Amino acid sequence: MDLIKALNWRYAVKNFDADRKVDPALVAQLVEAARLTPTSLGLQPFRLVVVENPDLKAKLDGASFGQVQPGTCSHLFVFACLTNLDEAYADGLIDQMATERNMESGPVESFRGMVKGFMGRLSREDQTTWEDKQAYIGLGQVMTAAALLGVDTCPMEGFDPAQVDEILGLCAQNLRPVLLCPIGYRSEDDKYQHQKKLRLPTEDFARFMP
Amino acid sequence: MDLIKALNWRYAVKNFDADRKVDPALVAQLVEAARLTPTSLGLQPFRLVVVENPDLKAKLDGASFGQVQPGTCSHLFVFACLTNLDEAYADGLIDQMATERNMESGPVESFRGMVKGFMGRLSREDQTTWEDKQAYIGLGQVMTAAALLGVDTCPMEGFDPAQVDEILGLCAQNLRPVLLCPIGYRSEDDKYQHQKKLRLPTEDFARFMP
Repeated sequence: MDLIKALNWRYAVKNFDADRKVDPALVAQLVEAARLTPTSLGLQPFRLVVVENPDLKAKLDGASFGQVQPGTCSHLFVFACLTNLDEAYADGLIDQMATERNMESGPVESFRGMVKGFMGRLSREDQTTWEDKQAYIGLGQVMTAAALLGVDTCPMEGFDPAQVDEILGLCAQNLRPVLLCPIGYRSEDDKYQHQKKLRLPTEDFARFMP
Repeated sequence: MDLIKALNWRYAVKNFDADRKVDPALVAQLVEAARLTPTSLGLQPFRLVVVENPDLKAKLDGASFGQVQPGTCSHLFVFACLTNLDEAYADGLIDQMATERNMESGPVESFRGMVKGFMGRLSREDQTTWEDKQAYIGLGQVMTAAALLGVDTCPMEGFDPAQVDEILGLCAQNLRPVLLCPIGYRSEDDKYQHQKKLRLPTEDFARFMP
């Protein structure tokens, strides 16, 4: 689909067609789009949990303040950040970089120092916020990719992290849920698809510096 | 370009070809991709500042800890959040929604109460973080869009907000810079384009719940 047409076609689906599944090949493309998300310093602080099981999805409706998208979508994508992103984790990725890119030790150690310096300056809370933000890049990438593939989505910040954690057993995987993104196909009955898209006019949104 | 091929083609450009400009029609598509970004509650907390002026771009190199992408790119996109997103702002957008969608007052006031309840529960600092996150969705959408259009980008968190603010006069527009995203075309000399892309293997990144 044409890019801008696809982005106009996209809207935050309220009711998915519960009978329509997304083809596994398309799901795989969306997982790959998430995996390829650029992240700050390449540290990839989030993982993608993919929920297809109907019982689990239905339980997640109960954790989303009455929203029914998790239960009715085809696949629920949960963007979940690591709870244990520490220097040892960074070292592992940097060592992998050095090996895969066949780098000399000078640039590797310089990069390692930069990464650790950055991490060392963050409070625990600021690091969490920084990790969360990277997941939001992934959300943007996945929703754009889905629209281009004709797959519907709904970005969801509104859920109870403790309940989602418990239902999916994320804590035991060193993960915490940051965003939900149900994917699937809009129900014909979802009236929101017919509503005018509301956005600021371009002249308010964009500021071209002279 | 094919979606996954485009996302693999994309990398964080270190050196742009300073002589190659992005066609205005493509810039307009990328601005539109940013404008169409979905944001929490539809509140659109960020604006896009587009810098093409060579003198301004060169000055911004000095505000980016020695990185040269702002100065050498074709257009610099600055994602900037509002400094004055308050209840009056939300009221304005909600009134616009009511008019453009020809809504009855019941659902409008219910939504207004929900938005104000949400905002009222956020500390000033938490609201800032929440606004920032919406800009990151926009960054993901713009970078994906650019890759599909064969336009290069580089996501940049590393800059001095006070200097960027001063160079662009953002504060006077009730804006604060959150992210830089230079757009343009990679220089043939940028060795980073030939490096292997480093990502977690799919089996580590994605967790398919049984």
